[in-house]
Amino acid sequence: MEKLESAGTYIHFETSLDPITALIEEGKYSKVFVFADINTSEHCLPVFREMLDDFSEFDLIETDPGEENKNIDFCIGIWKTLLDFGADRKALMINLGGGVITDMGGFVASTYKRGIDFINIPTTLLSQVDASVGGKTGIDIDNVKNMVGTFTLPKAVFIESAFLKTVPERELLSGFAEMIKHGLIADSAYFERLKAQRFNELPVEEIYRSVQIKNEVVTADPLEKNIRKILNFGHTIGHAVESYSLNNDKKSLTHGEAIAVGMICEAWLSWKNSTLTETELEEVKTYIASVYPAYHIKEKSFKALAKLMQSDKKNENGHILFSLLEKIGKCTYNCRVSETDINESLRFYNSIYAT
Amino acid sequence: MEKLESAGTYIHFETSLDPITALIEEGKYSKVFVFADINTSEHCLPVFREMLDDFSEFDLIETDPGEENKNIDFCIGIWKTLLDFGADRKALMINLGGGVITDMGGFVASTYKRGIDFINIPTTLLSQVDASVGGKTGIDIDNVKNMVGTFTLPKAVFIESAFLKTVPERELLSGFAEMIKHGLIADSAYFERLKAQRFNELPVEEIYRSVQIKNEVVTADPLEKNIRKILNFGHTIGHAVESYSLNNDKKSLTHGEAIAVGMICEAWLSWKNSTLTETELEEVKTYIASVYPAYHIKEKSFKALAKLMQSDKKNENGHILFSLLEKIGKCTYNCRVSETDINESLRFYNSIYAT
Ligand SMILES: NC(=O)c1ccc[n+]([C@@H]2O[C@H](COP(=O)([O-])OP(=O)(O)OC[C@H]3O[C@@H](n4cnc5c(N)ncnc54)[C@H](O)[C@@H]3O)[C@@H](O)[C@H]2O)c1
Ligand SMILES: NC(=O)c1ccc[n+]([C@@H]2O[C@H](COP(=O)([O-])OP(=O)(O)OC[C@H]3O[C@@H](n4cnc5c(N)ncnc54)[C@H](O)[C@@H]3O)[C@@H](O)[C@H]2O)c1
Ligand SMILES: [Zn+2]
Ligand SMILES: [Zn+2]
Repeated sequence: MEKLESAGTYIHFETSLDPITALIEEGKYSKVFVFADINTSEHCLPVFREMLDDFSEFDLIETDPGEENKNIDFCIGIWKTLLDFGADRKALMINLGGGVITDMGGFVASTYKRGIDFINIPTTLLSQVDASVGGKTGIDIDNVKNMVGTFTLPKAVFIESAFLKTVPERELLSGFAEMIKHGLIADSAYFERLKAQRFNELPVEEIYRSVQIKNEVVTADPLEKNIRKILNFGHTIGHAVESYSLNNDKKSLTHGEAIAVGMICEAWLSWKNSTLTETELEEVKTYIASVYPAYHIKEKSFKALAKLMQSDKKNENGHILFSLLEKIGKCTYNCRVSETDINESLRFYNSIYAT
Repeated sequence: MEKLESAGTYIHFETSLDPITALIEEGKYSKVFVFADINTSEHCLPVFREMLDDFSEFDLIETDPGEENKNIDFCIGIWKTLLDFGADRKALMINLGGGVITDMGGFVASTYKRGIDFINIPTTLLSQVDASVGGKTGIDIDNVKNMVGTFTLPKAVFIESAFLKTVPERELLSGFAEMIKHGLIADSAYFERLKAQRFNELPVEEIYRSVQIKNEVVTADPLEKNIRKILNFGHTIGHAVESYSLNNDKKSLTHGEAIAVGMICEAWLSWKNSTLTETELEEVKTYIASVYPAYHIKEKSFKALAKLMQSDKKNENGHILFSLLEKIGKCTYNCRVSETDINESLRFYNSIYAT
């Protein structure tokens, strides 16, 4: 299929990983490491091997799955493993997994001996349409998300729908939220097309379009000084809801579920503080609520949520800054919003499911 | 005095830190942090305050001094402190100290929230003539030196001889070894001039020349793919001797003392495997031996030293690669040398002090 250039790095689509062999030869790497978690090692490594015709000259580094393991202790473990396995500066790391693996593997690679090459093979929908582009690597410290990381581009990215077959439905739905976001902030026709799709039967073309949108945005602003901030639409409130849920709910929200909540709230803020019309607000709300499960944001959690928003990485000088829709398909950023409005938007969300 | 451009970053000499105020204003920083160890906090912070006319709007982050504290645990502590102090992406970190502080502070800053700006104020001779240029940041893991780090340029570097007044003589001598190295690899006239100097009364011009030489080399090859390797002259054997001494000697060698040993050995290898003449070898050996204390490399440590050289970061595909002098003032790199020759060079070093 197609190939996208992103700041000198190529994102390859549906190539069955063919170009990897040439990349490894050209790079004259001294050793190849594949980094996976136990799930992707079980489900994706066999696909990887088959695509690469039993290419086997690599060492496997395995880690436990999940966000709770995207931390500095695991990094230290991987750095040491690389050293024990004799990885020098000409080693190559292939990150095979979801965003946890590509974020953490990217961070480890970008700092091991001051940086070795890495290739990302995102295996979840979320990591394909979002984490695959933009060069962000990162890990959490004390549960503060991505508190530490770098901006480093992988040598190449491979997006293969074959890997998605084993991804649990709830994880697919989580990634789908980022695609909806891409439509809302940058391409209304795309948003319309997505409405006609089912999140678990997505055509490869629509995944491609999502990556393309993200790529256009980050290319215009690699270091997130300005326009890139529109990618945070739904994420200021969404992240806070996600953290809160993680610490308080028995069955916590996925990232995408939280972003779905955040997008509805921030659509309301866009109507209140920017130029989104009431009809558009209604459209966004109805569609998202039809795809994502209901959630209740307790009134007594509002203070805690505000505090979480305060500590968001994207703030500057203590102000909570939002990215808001001007209309469906267009987004602005650095919007200051009052705490009263934030609370009102949370109530708006709750009202959807009030009976 | 003068100002040197290094890949877009300015190295300022003897400005009494004047330009800092403007840099802070231009940068619109949300907060300023000064990072120091307890020695530089005692000896250098007062000088810093005086130069900056009691500029006091900063938070101080203090750490324990010495290489043994240039590790990941301290980094985690500093990352958390930054978070606790409310550092956002627009925070600025000023690293005030020797190479340990600028290396570790640079690493912490280059990764905190994927990178905040930092300014380096090196306060030892070593860090002024060496660590100040080239954008290397780093920390040790399990005593493996600089196992983890990044290539990130500070916003600016300030070199002030005023800070050197409190540096212990042995530390000055340590830094002086890098200046000798700069002469040997790139400027024979400079090497001649240094021979006429005393390491504890160095004119600012000669510090400037040293920084200039290093800057020329790293500018030609920022990522150490080729020519930058000449800066490793004396360091392949020197680093091994340094590590060995650290683990085995009661009073271990400083970096510069070990590099002095390494330069004599590698001058011998340069005579044996490159084009350095016997007269030049004699000149190098006699001068270095006149400045640095005698050391004895035990025959029974040769195996351990070879192993340490094997694990050197700069190796590729398992070969120990040396940077060797073609003549005084000119260096080549990627030279393979036999273990027999390495051992012979160690014996040559020992022979200087044999009676
Ligand atoms: N770098 C970026 O720009 C960026 C962007 C968005 C998200 N992220 C990060 O990505 C992470 C979330 O990504 P994620 O949702 O992919 O998380 P993840 O890596 O934890 O994957 C989710 C789960 O699916 C499993 N899995 C992965 N691929 C599979 C497959 N093909 N078959 C079966 N199971 C599979 C994983 O083991 C895990 O249990 C977060 O840490 C987030 O911060 C980064
Ligand atoms: N980044 C690079 O390119 C580069 C180059 C060379 C060395 N380095 C690193 O630099 C480190 C060694 O540098 P260093 O020798 O400056 O070590 P250092 O920072 O440990 O300083 C040596 C000692 O002097 C003290 N000190 C510093 N300034 C002082 C002052 N003005 N007055 C009194 N005491 C003072 C320190 O507290 C310390 O005890 C190593 O970790 C090495 O890896 C980095
Ligand atoms: Zn997201
Ligand atoms: Zn050195």
